[in-house]
Amino acid sequence: MATIDLNCDLGEGFGAWAMGDDAALLELVTSANVACGFHAGDPQIMLATCRLAAERGVAVGAHVAYHDLHGFGRRPLPLTPDELFADVVHQLGALQAAARAAGTRVGYVKPHGALYNVAVVDAVQADAVARACAAVDPGLAVLALPGSELLRAASAHGLVPVAETFADRAFRPDGTLVPRGLPGAVLHDPDEIAARVVRLVTEGRVAAVDGSELAVDARSVCVHGDTPGAVAIARRVRSALEAAGVALKAFV
Amino acid sequence: MATIDLNCDLGEGFGAWAMGDDAALLELVTSANVACGFHAGDPQIMLATCRLAAERGVAVGAHVAYHDLHGFGRRPLPLTPDELFADVVHQLGALQAAARAAGTRVGYVKPHGALYNVAVVDAVQADAVARACAAVDPGLAVLALPGSELLRAASAHGLVPVAETFADRAFRPDGTLVPRGLPGAVLHDPDEIAARVVRLVTEGRVAAVDGSELAVDARSVCVHGDTPGAVAIARRVRSALEAAGVALKAFV
Amino acid sequence: MATIDLNCDLGEGFGAWAMGDDAALLELVTSANVACGFHAGDPQIMLATCRLAAERGVAVGAHVAYHDLHGFGRRPLPLTPDELFADVVHQLGALQAAARAAGTRVGYVKPHGALYNVAVVDAVQADAVARACAAVDPGLAVLALPGSELLRAASAHGLVPVAETFADRAFRPDGTLVPRGLPGAVLHDPDEIAARVVRLVTEGRVAAVDGSELAVDARSVCVHGDTPGAVAIARRVRSALEAAGVALKAFV
Amino acid sequence: MATIDLNCDLGEGFGAWAMGDDAALLELVTSANVACGFHAGDPQIMLATCRLAAERGVAVGAHVAYHDLHGFGRRPLPLTPDELFADVVHQLGALQAAARAAGTRVGYVKPHGALYNVAVVDAVQADAVARACAAVDPGLAVLALPGSELLRAASAHGLVPVAETFADRAFRPDGTLVPRGLPGAVLHDPDEIAARVVRLVTEGRVAAVDGSELAVDARSVCVHGDTPGAVAIARRVRSALEAAGVALKAFV
Repeated sequence: MATIDLNCDLGEGFGAWAMGDDAALLELVTSANVACGFHAGDPQIMLATCRLAAERGVAVGAHVAYHDLHGFGRRPLPLTPDELFADVVHQLGALQAAARAAGTRVGYVKPHGALYNVAVVDAVQADAVARACAAVDPGLAVLALPGSELLRAASAHGLVPVAETFADRAFRPDGTLVPRGLPGAVLHDPDEIAARVVRLVTEGRVAAVDGSELAVDARSVCVHGDTPGAVAIARRVRSALEAAGVALKAFV
Repeated sequence: MATIDLNCDLGEGFGAWAMGDDAALLELVTSANVACGFHAGDPQIMLATCRLAAERGVAVGAHVAYHDLHGFGRRPLPLTPDELFADVVHQLGALQAAARAAGTRVGYVKPHGALYNVAVVDAVQADAVARACAAVDPGLAVLALPGSELLRAASAHGLVPVAETFADRAFRPDGTLVPRGLPGAVLHDPDEIAARVVRLVTEGRVAAVDGSELAVDARSVCVHGDTPGAVAIARRVRSALEAAGVALKAFV
Repeated sequence: MATIDLNCDLGEGFGAWAMGDDAALLELVTSANVACGFHAGDPQIMLATCRLAAERGVAVGAHVAYHDLHGFGRRPLPLTPDELFADVVHQLGALQAAARAAGTRVGYVKPHGALYNVAVVDAVQADAVARACAAVDPGLAVLALPGSELLRAASAHGLVPVAETFADRAFRPDGTLVPRGLPGAVLHDPDEIAARVVRLVTEGRVAAVDGSELAVDARSVCVHGDTPGAVAIARRVRSALEAAGVALKAFV
Repeated sequence: MATIDLNCDLGEGFGAWAMGDDAALLELVTSANVACGFHAGDPQIMLATCRLAAERGVAVGAHVAYHDLHGFGRRPLPLTPDELFADVVHQLGALQAAARAAGTRVGYVKPHGALYNVAVVDAVQADAVARACAAVDPGLAVLALPGSELLRAASAHGLVPVAETFADRAFRPDGTLVPRGLPGAVLHDPDEIAARVVRLVTEGRVAAVDGSELAVDARSVCVHGDTPGAVAIARRVRSALEAAGVALKAFV
């Protein structure tokens, strides 16, 4: 029987500001990428999100980011590798303590936003992230794009590399994502998205924008939490996978 | 042979701003109260301070505080106990990870500034701090004022209560500190301070401002790091203790 | 013909986080209390809100607050009067420049959240706020609760005091608001709210919770922007006032 | 008789952290580049610095920067021109209000750190800075490097461009600065620095690192405030200029 993990960015409010419907999404996903206070989240939200995840048996991952609340971690910051190392250590430790206080643990790390993108292509920054993870907990998994520098660095530092793919994104024939902003980059129809995910998981294949077939090997599928209709899409994806006999299960 | 711990607030710079001479003080003290980013410190400074402490065999404590960089943690903030709990968990976890990455560990917690003072008298806030420590690491020690609510709460939550006294502060006949701002509250003469500390440690006694004798039972003596002459005072205290045959040794 | 001002808190997002439907509310109110970056708002949001207000002919006021993004300005902070003076000067100046760049000007100041409440009863803090306003622009109006220390201080410093009342709040027989959290403190029915506001404006009277009649003398009515149904309530209030022949007009 | 302005970065502390000896430097310079809270400074420090400047008759300029307290404004941030425009408007307005409350005014703008460097070469970002200045006060001067995009943009927007040079920096034969980090980039000998500045001002010439002669046309000389010996160097420069019969006078 096929199994897959569904991951989602959660805990991305700050103080009085909310982002997404965390309670609803935590009923649907198996892994929660929890914001660590650098791009979103605060100590109270981090703890509350870990508690909700613990109650629902959802795995907790550290959604580490550049320290940029105002830019929501979407802007690449010119950090040295040593600065980035310390920033990742800090966020990871803060979430570990929140998880412990909530009766769960941090099983993996997934960079957020600009740091996610930088760690795909920049071997030096990817190495800093992986080194930081290994320095804090050598048993961590690292969730990232297939073929990314970060997955390579994770392996090099003895961590568990886990490839993810995206439920609602279109692919180019070379397997990379159609960049946001280009027409058709993001899919919106829940039924279409759910059907693609089922095929991804059960056949390991997806259609690129030109109609060609791509092989995709991923142990986790990312569903978005902060887009309009996010909950409806996640619910449709989950029920389609269950209907197809796929077991939903965290990878850690 | 008598033994005593010398503790000092360290890592209290932020970004480009420095505070105190950490490198010099880490040669003199046995326990470092490391700022956790809420009143001072940042991920890079926290990591660097843990590394220096590890190299010198100095114990690391989490100097947790209200989240108030601008006020340096000196202003009491109206947090609920749940908010304070989450804030302490966060700071403690972040420093634990820095310590781990530096090859050491966090052995104790000492609140900073306004939180230190609030936790002396406010049983509810003290309980929130102690609960947070116990939730993250039940083996922690808590360093605080003798007779404080925080030491009581630490015991109640199974933590190790450790009483400290101050090298450079005058006492009232009832054993409380002469409040800062009053004349004579802070001592400045290194020789006088050193002689007091030796007597404190070897005889357990100190003279109050009215000349009466006080019994003091403390396992640690706090030396200040950010006052003029701080390093000279700490050096004088340390050498006087060594000359008196007292062993300097962390309590954790 | 009776005239009244409708004021509303606006520009209370931060970075990627939104709060309320500013565009819709700016079609309905005559004065915008624009967040100045201390409890909410950022330079981009401040400028965008001023531009929208300028386009719609809505007056701009500085919604000054304690510097506490995480607490949304709802926690009283222990500032000295001099610290508060500087904080108000800063926020006011920043919004003045945004207004100027948007082709409009700041006509009044209204404190937010905890600072609003403190300035009702604390003459020293109220004086610091009024002094700051007068130091930056002696022609400013100050919008606050009738009978508040802040209105008194505004008069004392030569500023224009403007009393406001609330569209959706219940009153005690002594004219004070039923505190939030008590049952019935906040009204939710748009028709009831609209009818109360019309009577407030045209007769200067409103029913207290015990059924007794209160005289209310206010040049502005505050409608809330961040509650569920806020836009619907504001729309209903505005159309009821217009139907009653009341002219909607800013007080500056 | 030759006249020259001496400018210096001031007000660069934050909360409890100090940077440089502002009081001493304000006795020596004629223009104060006052930090506006984005890379350093806070509302209290901004106000205090404006008051000191007003007392001593020193001109006040807005030392605008990227919003990066942790990085002290030394890291280039990837802002859009619209974001940068709003950030400059904000800082300028906040300092204008502080200046007004202190009985003085903001006469010019000088970008700080990474923004200074970006505005030398990036015409789009330079235009955003100049547009923001013009939108807030069309009478402002802009202080920047000779030949920079920012001086060009200042002229294009009707502002007063003012070229500055540096007291303690070495020049390459093409007139650009020897980059920091290269040997000899920064001069340290007060007598040598003072002699260079006198020649710069009285003859408009300075020796490049290869011994060739450069023509320099600058109405202001920047002295640094945060380096070791900063006050001694500024004092030596000032007295050498006075001894040479040069009048020290702000350009605004």
